[in-house]
Amino acid sequence: MNIQLSSTSYGKSAVRVMKLNKHANWHEIKEVDICTLFEGAFEEAHTDGDNSNVLPTDTQKNTVYALAKDHPLQTIEDFGLHLAKHFLDGNPQIHKVRIELLQKQWAQIMDDGKPHPKAYQRAGNEKWTAVIEMTADKTTVQSGISDLLILKTTDSGFSNFKRDEFTTLKDTEDRIFATNLAAHWHYVGTDLDFVTLRKTIQSTLLSAFANHKSLSVQHTLYAMGKQVLETVEQVQKIDIDMPNKHHLLVNLEPFNLPNHNEIFVVTDEPYGVIRGALERS
Amino acid sequence: MNIQLSSTSYGKSAVRVMKLNKHANWHEIKEVDICTLFEGAFEEAHTDGDNSNVLPTDTQKNTVYALAKDHPLQTIEDFGLHLAKHFLDGNPQIHKVRIELLQKQWAQIMDDGKPHPKAYQRAGNEKWTAVIEMTADKTTVQSGISDLLILKTTDSGFSNFKRDEFTTLKDTEDRIFATNLAAHWHYVGTDLDFVTLRKTIQSTLLSAFANHKSLSVQHTLYAMGKQVLETVEQVQKIDIDMPNKHHLLVNLEPFNLPNHNEIFVVTDEPYGVIRGALERS
Amino acid sequence: MNIQLSSTSYGKSAVRVMKLNKHANWHEIKEVDICTLFEGAFEEAHTDGDNSNVLPTDTQKNTVYALAKDHPLQTIEDFGLHLAKHFLDGNPQIHKVRIELLQKQWAQIMDDGKPHPKAYQRAGNEKWTAVIEMTADKTTVQSGISDLLILKTTDSGFSNFKRDEFTTLKDTEDRIFATNLAAHWHYVGTDLDFVTLRKTIQSTLLSAFANHKSLSVQHTLYAMGKQVLETVEQVQKIDIDMPNKHHLLVNLEPFNLPNHNEIFVVTDEPYGVIRGALERS
Amino acid sequence: MNIQLSSTSYGKSAVRVMKLNKHANWHEIKEVDICTLFEGAFEEAHTDGDNSNVLPTDTQKNTVYALAKDHPLQTIEDFGLHLAKHFLDGNPQIHKVRIELLQKQWAQIMDDGKPHPKAYQRAGNEKWTAVIEMTADKTTVQSGISDLLILKTTDSGFSNFKRDEFTTLKDTEDRIFATNLAAHWHYVGTDLDFVTLRKTIQSTLLSAFANHKSLSVQHTLYAMGKQVLETVEQVQKIDIDMPNKHHLLVNLEPFNLPNHNEIFVVTDEPYGVIRGALERS
Repeated sequence: MNIQLSSTSYGKSAVRVMKLNKHANWHEIKEVDICTLFEGAFEEAHTDGDNSNVLPTDTQKNTVYALAKDHPLQTIEDFGLHLAKHFLDGNPQIHKVRIELLQKQWAQIMDDGKPHPKAYQRAGNEKWTAVIEMTADKTTVQSGISDLLILKTTDSGFSNFKRDEFTTLKDTEDRIFATNLAAHWHYVGTDLDFVTLRKTIQSTLLSAFANHKSLSVQHTLYAMGKQVLETVEQVQKIDIDMPNKHHLLVNLEPFNLPNHNEIFVVTDEPYGVIRGALERS
Repeated sequence: MNIQLSSTSYGKSAVRVMKLNKHANWHEIKEVDICTLFEGAFEEAHTDGDNSNVLPTDTQKNTVYALAKDHPLQTIEDFGLHLAKHFLDGNPQIHKVRIELLQKQWAQIMDDGKPHPKAYQRAGNEKWTAVIEMTADKTTVQSGISDLLILKTTDSGFSNFKRDEFTTLKDTEDRIFATNLAAHWHYVGTDLDFVTLRKTIQSTLLSAFANHKSLSVQHTLYAMGKQVLETVEQVQKIDIDMPNKHHLLVNLEPFNLPNHNEIFVVTDEPYGVIRGALERS
Repeated sequence: MNIQLSSTSYGKSAVRVMKLNKHANWHEIKEVDICTLFEGAFEEAHTDGDNSNVLPTDTQKNTVYALAKDHPLQTIEDFGLHLAKHFLDGNPQIHKVRIELLQKQWAQIMDDGKPHPKAYQRAGNEKWTAVIEMTADKTTVQSGISDLLILKTTDSGFSNFKRDEFTTLKDTEDRIFATNLAAHWHYVGTDLDFVTLRKTIQSTLLSAFANHKSLSVQHTLYAMGKQVLETVEQVQKIDIDMPNKHHLLVNLEPFNLPNHNEIFVVTDEPYGVIRGALERS
Repeated sequence: MNIQLSSTSYGKSAVRVMKLNKHANWHEIKEVDICTLFEGAFEEAHTDGDNSNVLPTDTQKNTVYALAKDHPLQTIEDFGLHLAKHFLDGNPQIHKVRIELLQKQWAQIMDDGKPHPKAYQRAGNEKWTAVIEMTADKTTVQSGISDLLILKTTDSGFSNFKRDEFTTLKDTEDRIFATNLAAHWHYVGTDLDFVTLRKTIQSTLLSAFANHKSLSVQHTLYAMGKQVLETVEQVQKIDIDMPNKHHLLVNLEPFNLPNHNEIFVVTDEPYGVIRGALERS
């Protein structure tokens, strides 16, 4: 018998950075959680405990903070590219660097009708994400959004589906459609205006969701992905994960009350899983 | 030896309600999690297993949904009062009803520059809360806010504190001040305009936080509570919990880099606990 | 109008300690999360930003680690008493110290049929807790257990309960009874054998739960508390919180299958809240 | 431009099942969370809203409960295979079924020195997992364990690693090594004694962890995987994920106290990521 190490990776996760830029009239903040991951010539670390190729995960953490000092951190995509290049350039033993970044949202506190220049509150639960992968030959940038809870109150049905002996669900022409959207898209190229692209893609996803006449979650997922590919030529592929967060109509008949889509139980479990990827060819 | 049942309560928690009101041009949603709790003549249920006085927690849940049908649910305070009265009126064995309500925030999706009438996204992580307590003699309304993550980038110091042999902390005149605010306030009376009051109190808390020259978390907590009591005469008492979410300055000296309050580690543990209650007399 | 600071407390939470005692033939570990809280003469810290009475929460954290160095940490109760006395003795401005401790459970890994002397795995999800409160005049010790998920498959019913117009629940003589037990008990005195007492109380709670012919959660809660008070004279009072974690019988009738208490849906929400305190007099 | 749907899947997640088997002298329980996922001819559901091929996720949930009724559920692997075959046989439109199963651990309550036949407590936080993938041509079974928190107090070092300008970590010959183990292994074949195999693999992993002279997490991960492959010929491949849960030595020097690996801060963030896969060839 022969035993092979078929794949390995290592790095540091949950490196939490806040950068404060003090401008003349306001203070800007960026909060990003970062994970660094390396693949490469690490076989002897595993087989023999030879650490001479292993740049410590503690050093990776230090590097994130040190490089954040001199980088403007205006987009997680650009900072991820900067980090990846630093690690790859300085470490011939690393064949592939992967940087995962997650940005949390802050908004200026409204005070007396205008945004306060130096005080913030968390803005929404959604996260902006990016994944950079870099080898000597190739660099890819993937951006995304996660934990974006959205809901539409109408224009959503599900009917004429396949039935079998265990089917009890009834057709519906009108239901609440709620999902915790996660989407990530793969860019063509790396030298891009990530601020504008993200803004366009996110508003396209939301608009397509809000306005679609939905015959199923699958149907709306496709419409959203298609709209992004048609609108933003720099996107080669988009992956969308739209769990169906069921809002169950409460049966009020025992109490002689009608319920015309008015009162719902909000549930977390179980939930429908709906995933799809759309690609231009 | 004599054994006494010195206190009891029972009820149903995590009753999750969504109410959808279909107006002519838009759909309004309210999402509320509710807990009902009863105290009363339940000794024999405990000692003898005699359930004749025990209105099931399942019935409590049904009641929440049934009463939500015909109530506008414009404020959690008014709906909580309605629920409490229903339970107390129909159940002489109940001496005290406590209703806890927690409202999650939704905002209309912006589509083509204006709010979409029938599509929503989660707005912030903060929750609006209310607690109603009702007996035959007395009703109290407490409202609050929780999980409101706020941060100010300046005007925050901590110095000239007490020192002992285990003190290593240094004085600071400038630090990030971040907290996950929870506050609840006790109203005088129950027939109030809860919408306007909440709006005023919440903006007062935020404004006081943003503008205070803070010498400590305690100092700012007091300023915030005082401002609320001075602004809103219907508030008798306010409890504020402001955990100090430490943002630690990264030591970049080993890398010959300065760090003038620019790069911070965001931490969850450990955290400072700072709590205070202010009352008018 | 006069504004009063009616109560305050401050301290440090989530101070996570692991102590490793290296014995001749084995290594012993203790993992404890600690929260320190002070009440006292802190009015001027709030009103004027005068920190001269404020021992920093950072110092409190340092103190926990420094005192853990020379204390055997055999019980969280004894270590909590030691910490409380240290803070109270050295700080006349503190009127009351509260120390909350939570111990996580580890068991030696079984290797080749016997416990390995230097390797451990997490043992259960339950936590052992203690709360020490100390003033110049009085010291109290409260011990407890939390997050102890327990379940009995039989000897549990709920019937002959009060009904109203919103009651749809049916009587049942046989159901799964599952709860996430949290209990804490108040000792008479502070110089006690906390190891033996805890062991006896915990096994008494479990045995009473397992063997009770339950007519309701309330009925079993009382039987458990009563058994503890009858067995352990050092306990003055016990508080028990037994949420009813509903296991719902699945309706298999549409598929022509019987379901004699065989197949259940495990649910987290909503859940019944059942709380009670028993005291000796 | 042409837009393609490059991949899709859908199903139901968090289907939570408890099965109670009433034997003559004791009651046996199995608690399993299940996720069903389908790939297949679902393009028109996405592009046209044609649901005629879509077996509802609600039906998938019903099927899980109905099939659990007549299956002994002795192993999650066998039940997963049974579910996968049911879905694939009845649905020509499905090309691939994936069933994910996660079993939570229960142990009989010890009462008067022996296990109670009808009362249980949660046993550990670890989960037993399985993933079944089935197409017309091929079936694979992957089993695993997750959330197994383990720790060794000695025989762990990390030294002679690569250094750069951002390295501050010092060599250590003796540290606490703690990890939250997740491992999954791929079986050769599907008609196996899953009970015995799991038992052997899990005890092999634990024993290798406990006894290894570790020069790094990578080094121990490899030793554990190698031991499994050498011991259990039915395993073709094993993936191991061993996050380094750092236990940081507290600096007690400012207080003139030594700290010879006695007092540690337990941390969750940041953490080292260490992953590897070993395969026989």
